[in-house]
Amino acid sequence: VSLADALAEVLDAGRVADGESALDQHAADLSYHPPHRPDAVVFPETTEEVARVLAFADRERIPVVPFGAATSLEGHVIPVAGGISLDLGRLNRILSVEPADLTAVVEPGVTRLALNERLGRDGLQFPVDPGADATLGGMAATNASGTTTVRYGGMRAHVLALEVVLAGGGVIRTGSRARKSSAGYDLTSLFVGSEGTLGVITELALRVHGIPEHAVAIRIAFPDLDAACRAAVAIVGAGVSATRLELLDAETLRAVNAYKGTSYEEAPSLFVELSGSDQGVAGDLEAARELAEDATAFQAERDPTARSRLWEARHHVLFALVAASPGKEHLSTDVCVPVSHLPDAVRHARAEIDRQGLTGTVVAHAGDGNYHVLFMLDPADPSELERARALNAAIVEWALEHGGTCTGEHGIGLGKIDYLQREHGDLLPLMRGVKALLDPNGIMNPGKVLPSQPE
Amino acid sequence: VSLADALAEVLDAGRVADGESALDQHAADLSYHPPHRPDAVVFPETTEEVARVLAFADRERIPVVPFGAATSLEGHVIPVAGGISLDLGRLNRILSVEPADLTAVVEPGVTRLALNERLGRDGLQFPVDPGADATLGGMAATNASGTTTVRYGGMRAHVLALEVVLAGGGVIRTGSRARKSSAGYDLTSLFVGSEGTLGVITELALRVHGIPEHAVAIRIAFPDLDAACRAAVAIVGAGVSATRLELLDAETLRAVNAYKGTSYEEAPSLFVELSGSDQGVAGDLEAARELAEDATAFQAERDPTARSRLWEARHHVLFALVAASPGKEHLSTDVCVPVSHLPDAVRHARAEIDRQGLTGTVVAHAGDGNYHVLFMLDPADPSELERARALNAAIVEWALEHGGTCTGEHGIGLGKIDYLQREHGDLLPLMRGVKALLDPNGIMNPGKVLPSQPE
Repeated sequence: VSLADALAEVLDAGRVADGESALDQHAADLSYHPPHRPDAVVFPETTEEVARVLAFADRERIPVVPFGAATSLEGHVIPVAGGISLDLGRLNRILSVEPADLTAVVEPGVTRLALNERLGRDGLQFPVDPGADATLGGMAATNASGTTTVRYGGMRAHVLALEVVLAGGGVIRTGSRARKSSAGYDLTSLFVGSEGTLGVITELALRVHGIPEHAVAIRIAFPDLDAACRAAVAIVGAGVSATRLELLDAETLRAVNAYKGTSYEEAPSLFVELSGSDQGVAGDLEAARELAEDATAFQAERDPTARSRLWEARHHVLFALVAASPGKEHLSTDVCVPVSHLPDAVRHARAEIDRQGLTGTVVAHAGDGNYHVLFMLDPADPSELERARALNAAIVEWALEHGGTCTGEHGIGLGKIDYLQREHGDLLPLMRGVKALLDPNGIMNPGKVLPSQPE
Repeated sequence: VSLADALAEVLDAGRVADGESALDQHAADLSYHPPHRPDAVVFPETTEEVARVLAFADRERIPVVPFGAATSLEGHVIPVAGGISLDLGRLNRILSVEPADLTAVVEPGVTRLALNERLGRDGLQFPVDPGADATLGGMAATNASGTTTVRYGGMRAHVLALEVVLAGGGVIRTGSRARKSSAGYDLTSLFVGSEGTLGVITELALRVHGIPEHAVAIRIAFPDLDAACRAAVAIVGAGVSATRLELLDAETLRAVNAYKGTSYEEAPSLFVELSGSDQGVAGDLEAARELAEDATAFQAERDPTARSRLWEARHHVLFALVAASPGKEHLSTDVCVPVSHLPDAVRHARAEIDRQGLTGTVVAHAGDGNYHVLFMLDPADPSELERARALNAAIVEWALEHGGTCTGEHGIGLGKIDYLQREHGDLLPLMRGVKALLDPNGIMNPGKVLPSQPE
């Protein structure tokens, strides 16, 4: 019998697919990593169905790859060893919203925009914003963060409790609905960022926040990248309550203008959002204006439509680059360094880009010291891919030498396994031990995070 | 040879003690748990010396109990199985402060007040405030939090990176100096809150914060506990940027007045701190005044001395209770519930206190839903201890039924092992697995956190 037939015995046949299009849709993510098809796709609708799939797969030693919105950037959802793609898209219920507790409980297939639409009715928001409309299960699995992390923190700061199905089909519940706990080892934080290699998240209790009373979006252009970086570091240091603090280089603004028909200065720029009380925002706006002393342009927008237009420009950077390079695939570096090193880090990256003869743009979550060099490349051109990888390696090496990390928010997946070894070689035996404890037969998302051979 | 003699071979003899007074000083913490002496005390001065002690102890199967300032509240530092008390008090250097990165690197024996004294020179603060002048290593080990957690989070939100000596003497480094990372499994969060049972923290990289420009301290008295709780929940829900939001019941204020010579209304009260920009604080103060509609007194203090006086009253609650009950020992409950349940939780607790015929006072970190019932009891009176334990059990049961946790900030230690089993019974096999992975011979702080017999 085929795997799909066997799975149809485990679940209802309507929950299983192995047609060409289903397999293709579950073969790739947003990255340059080559697609690889699963052997079958399942669409469970309850925790109990997830547990049945995992018990079966564990017994039969079949790989299982949890699948959300496929917006991962390091091949996380690509079933490189075949097996089952576990599509959590039908587990998409918002189970509760408790405004008085500032919490929400969701299934893993709920996307962040769907959750925010529901929360908005109560004046609430879930601020973690990786750009794409990812699922909350996927965001937890990679410890995603993004533009608002400078103010609110990333996923780990927002996950209060998890329901997780373990490899053998057992179901556990970590954490509680309380805002804090010191009850034993922190297994919640262990599953957050485990990239589907330790179990399948089937429910999440999340912290949510009130929507600030007032907000202002600011675009500040600078004569050079250094000045922009310095201003970002100064804004963080001054304690201005920025909810977003993004850096875009001149090349990025060129691509944005071409894609959106805007006419922003094609110069290194900060996109900043301040929010809070009316008076607080007014005070912070003045402070930001003083700190950006070298600015060549300073555009502040209070009107919601104008604010949205500015942030849309930032959020569409990746689409703008894709549009400018038809037929190419996306590779992004993701190092994060102590904030004070950001100007040097970006200067170093820019020099390396030129040295490799590549065309890359730089965007940074400047308030966190996390920056991306984005390339569009032709995966069929080995020289281009090789130079991009050499560049990535040089950037990671610089970050590690300056107290940083190889990945601020994208995770390890397929693409950063060597860097994990470089960054945390001393921890790999422990990480392997944790993996063996939770997934003794190695069926959970094999080939991701940990090197396949003992180091 | 005695253990001390054997240890003098491992370390310098000047780093080892087994005199009566050294053993007594390392036999107890601040709680009601009966003291138990170690067989020897060591005072390592470097990571390498800690590693030598652990390698020796692991080889010889001798228990090792890390010891900071002995301010733990559940017997964490009591060497119930004898062995070595590892006093980290000489590892007390502040290794670096980086104002531009908002980070500091410290050894585990640095206390929070010592760190804050150093940070103050740069206009910075480390806000996590458990009341006592605990060591930062100890605070990380219990995932401590306290009065400022409503705004800044607890220890886990502040530890960026750790150096840890493992049971066998190996040294590892988790995390990085960057503000965020998605590089593999989160071992930093696993060691934070592990209560010395997985390894010994020998260095911490911490997030620090700027000292807010302006602050105001407020005392608000209410006609009853319910009204005070409701106001606290309303203040949290309104998004007022409180840095502290503490609830004290009438009995607590009575003890404070007697101890400090103050004349505060002996009524349920909120002690609130607002901070931020001048204008922001002014706006929040107005909002707080409106939200506390049932208040019978509203005292706002902007002057630093008057502010300190108010917070000193709050911080000296425990001393006030101790002074009122000479010869008695301290027991504190520590549940944390979703914030909206706090009024019901406190009402339930008050009824249970009366039912058991005990005298207890209630203080709450109301913004987090974390409250303590504090008793002074005579450990030699079995009936009193038994009633206090029955009360604690009833309070924990109520909290768990309402989505809470048995411990918001004190940890499990000796006193809450049964509650951990009740709260996270499904997780105990995993926690045991983690313990076996990191400490296969069970030498690290045995008898704490996990039940000694498999459940």
